[in-house]
Amino acid sequence: MKLIARPVDLEVGNKLIVIMNKEDIDSLSLRTLDKVRIRYNEKEITATVDETSKFTVKGEIVTNDEVTKFFNLKGGEHLEVLPIEQLDSVIFIRQKICGSRLDAPKIKRIVEDVVSKRLSTIELSAFVTALYTRGISIDEAANLSKAMVETGKRINFPGKIICDKHSIGGLAGDKTSMILVPIVAAAGLTIPKSSSKAITSPCGTAERMEVLAPVNLNLEEIVEIIKKTNGCLVWGGALDIAPADDMFIQVEYPLGIDPLLLPSIMSKKKAIGTNHLIIDIPVGKEAKIKTNEDAVELADDFIELGKRLGINVACGITFGDQPLGHYIGPALEAREALLTLQNKGPRDVVEKVTTLAGLLFETIGKGNKQTAMEILKSGKAEKKMREIIEAQGGNPKIQPEDIVIGSNFIQVRSKNEGRVLWIKNSAIIQIARRAGAPKDRGAGIHLNVKMNDEVKRGDILFTIYSDNYMRLNDAFNLTEELEPIVVGKKFEEKMLLDEVFSELPRKKIFMLER
Amino acid sequence: MKLIARPVDLEVGNKLIVIMNKEDIDSLSLRTLDKVRIRYNEKEITATVDETSKFTVKGEIVTNDEVTKFFNLKGGEHLEVLPIEQLDSVIFIRQKICGSRLDAPKIKRIVEDVVSKRLSTIELSAFVTALYTRGISIDEAANLSKAMVETGKRINFPGKIICDKHSIGGLAGDKTSMILVPIVAAAGLTIPKSSSKAITSPCGTAERMEVLAPVNLNLEEIVEIIKKTNGCLVWGGALDIAPADDMFIQVEYPLGIDPLLLPSIMSKKKAIGTNHLIIDIPVGKEAKIKTNEDAVELADDFIELGKRLGINVACGITFGDQPLGHYIGPALEAREALLTLQNKGPRDVVEKVTTLAGLLFETIGKGNKQTAMEILKSGKAEKKMREIIEAQGGNPKIQPEDIVIGSNFIQVRSKNEGRVLWIKNSAIIQIARRAGAPKDRGAGIHLNVKMNDEVKRGDILFTIYSDNYMRLNDAFNLTEELEPIVVGKKFEEKMLLDEVFSELPRKKIFMLER
Repeated sequence: MKLIARPVDLEVGNKLIVIMNKEDIDSLSLRTLDKVRIRYNEKEITATVDETSKFTVKGEIVTNDEVTKFFNLKGGEHLEVLPIEQLDSVIFIRQKICGSRLDAPKIKRIVEDVVSKRLSTIELSAFVTALYTRGISIDEAANLSKAMVETGKRINFPGKIICDKHSIGGLAGDKTSMILVPIVAAAGLTIPKSSSKAITSPCGTAERMEVLAPVNLNLEEIVEIIKKTNGCLVWGGALDIAPADDMFIQVEYPLGIDPLLLPSIMSKKKAIGTNHLIIDIPVGKEAKIKTNEDAVELADDFIELGKRLGINVACGITFGDQPLGHYIGPALEAREALLTLQNKGPRDVVEKVTTLAGLLFETIGKGNKQTAMEILKSGKAEKKMREIIEAQGGNPKIQPEDIVIGSNFIQVRSKNEGRVLWIKNSAIIQIARRAGAPKDRGAGIHLNVKMNDEVKRGDILFTIYSDNYMRLNDAFNLTEELEPIVVGKKFEEKMLLDEVFSELPRKKIFMLER
Repeated sequence: MKLIARPVDLEVGNKLIVIMNKEDIDSLSLRTLDKVRIRYNEKEITATVDETSKFTVKGEIVTNDEVTKFFNLKGGEHLEVLPIEQLDSVIFIRQKICGSRLDAPKIKRIVEDVVSKRLSTIELSAFVTALYTRGISIDEAANLSKAMVETGKRINFPGKIICDKHSIGGLAGDKTSMILVPIVAAAGLTIPKSSSKAITSPCGTAERMEVLAPVNLNLEEIVEIIKKTNGCLVWGGALDIAPADDMFIQVEYPLGIDPLLLPSIMSKKKAIGTNHLIIDIPVGKEAKIKTNEDAVELADDFIELGKRLGINVACGITFGDQPLGHYIGPALEAREALLTLQNKGPRDVVEKVTTLAGLLFETIGKGNKQTAMEILKSGKAEKKMREIIEAQGGNPKIQPEDIVIGSNFIQVRSKNEGRVLWIKNSAIIQIARRAGAPKDRGAGIHLNVKMNDEVKRGDILFTIYSDNYMRLNDAFNLTEELEPIVVGKKFEEKMLLDEVFSELPRKKIFMLER
């Protein structure tokens, strides 16, 4: 059937959509949300059909942005519309739903159809749900990773040792990469680090680094920077590496499930040529991973998956019972990172960074924690960071005090005396976000105390920053509700960990950041 | 945030959709496909957000048909747009994904949110997939059924015995209801039968009956007809009973999974007040159910579910290795049904109808198969059918030969001699559909032979009818490919049942009809 194109500017979650008149839909024996093949000028795509009886007349086909762009339509073109046979990938998804393990060619086909947008939201959601409920074998994870690499762009640095670092995230204030990357690069190793932006956290490394230099670079620019400096700290979102992952996230995020965590992380590492990888797994009461046992299991999976992808993986299981360092929020964290590179940083940050860098050095056989500490102490790491900032287009002379933080602040004081018993990670995250982080770069929290510190009544516990007075006030009100820092004489005074009144599950603060 | 309404005629699979400018979406911290609450004139709904940077300007909100209708918008109204907290139902869906059993209040909440369109396609698809992979307990099935009943319209006939009949379907030519309903009604019992239209079959009972009388009636009309005649044969799709089911089907159909089969069927029966139900489970090599064991298991589930819903269920497991009767297609089957009511029908149809009606009579304690046979033989069933036809607005004097069938036909002849070894149900279905059934009411197949009949070379095996010569030709070509009727001397000559060359699964002909 030939229909006349009418382009309309409409983005529907990045999908290929056409809108047809009810009569035309009927005469092709289609149903709403079925897929059709559309042919024009010897090009062909698969789009999803929406139905209207008024918005389009018989003989006409409305195309959304994605379809219009693909065919370069102006309007008035005659598009051939054909019903399609069921996709093989839909059959493979059904096999996964039924509990089968999928082999490499089947997984490849599914991922290809995801990337080329041939699969509907229904099918994508069913696939992700089935991966979660049926589980993913290591073979499936490896094949998913490979397929996600092969369907996107890649970098190759032939013959070189390529290092990378990843944290599974969830810990407020974790600016480790900002210090680890220059240490590793200063050691003469290559580390093209790409990072994500915050989804549910107050700050991702991309946002921290963006305070100091542009991070929205493309693959060619990254290759150039790496040639000059050995390292970079860029945003991974615009690189078009493993594009399938972004489509999976669109489904995983609203469902709050994350079955593709491992393939997602590893495919992005593989795509930029990583062969030595250190993974940070913070463990804490309010971190993503609650127990050492779970962390070891996850680490084993990462290491096993690494073997199948040709990546030498080491994992560091780290203390995650309180935020890292004293600052949370993009500008505040960028400041603390610079201070740490100038050897004026807090003990926990230095300890974590040098330990993880040391593990990476040991994996490669080029040093240990002491090596990392020497590079940091000597000022070589700071010098390297300034080279990276310059190469990415920032000001290499920037000093911590040059970084602009929120113009309004509220100090939250202790109502009693004793020691800091707990700092609630999830409460700190929520308050920092309420104050405006990560969008408001200057918003965030300064922790004036850390766990086990002695506190007098009236001492400042923490300071909330924001550019916007309303949001600052909201964040303060949330503080009253959440009690993020608990002060008491002894743990014995606070035996009640949480209150449970009904069987209604608490809303999980979901941390999908990869 | 207040935005100015701009209605656009756009149906997107019945969903509530608004389109907002990227800037407005960002400033509400939303993501594409997130949900928002929209308030206007003290009414409030939840809609899904799509994003565009060109199609809408900042400060404007485009509303689709469903949203426009709900608020009765003309354009220019100031709508309040608010981000929403995560729905409880999404948490319950996640619990099901994680393997929990859901209790009645949770299931109720999910079904309510399905019906009020607060759940996205992603969530709906994940729920259906999780129901399939995790399985549904009888309690869950009962609670799903009740919730589906309570969220739709209902009929009540207080204190009366209300009969109903259902087939799980899949058998070509199954016109049982067309004869069973008038038999039961002629016995003085009430049977308000609603039926579906074909989705993947060549003909549903709604289409068969529509050849004789209108079937698109509302609940009030049904109540009136039942008062006059005790029985009816109407289309269930426009009654707005158990509307959640239609939304589940929209997801189940493309995935080819059917976890809600039992609640779907039973909720529709419960909604029209059924308390005695006979369920037909055809078993055959190419029917939905392949073995007696599976049929018994399914029957047990129906009976158990019936107990929890206050419906007395009896199941008949019936022979389904070949199509029922000799005719397939709306007009052809209406003709055969009338002939059977006039005691000129084929043996298998009479046997099946009277057996199932007899089982129903036994359940109620008002007779048996013999009773059904007597009602049919006496002409009372035909008389009752003519009353029903008249009450629904058809011609009560219609004779079999008055029914118009396809004007073109092709006779398919046997290429060899022997007995009819097999009639492939799925091949017959595909050929009848290719000829134009069910849309082309006169299209279909006349089986000139049935299994085990003796056939000579050149004898007519079956006749394909269609109004459209092109489609007739297509159907004939498909015949050559599928070999729907296999003639041979002995089974020993045909030992090869099917050929398997690769592990690629065959495309399942999915039969979701309920």
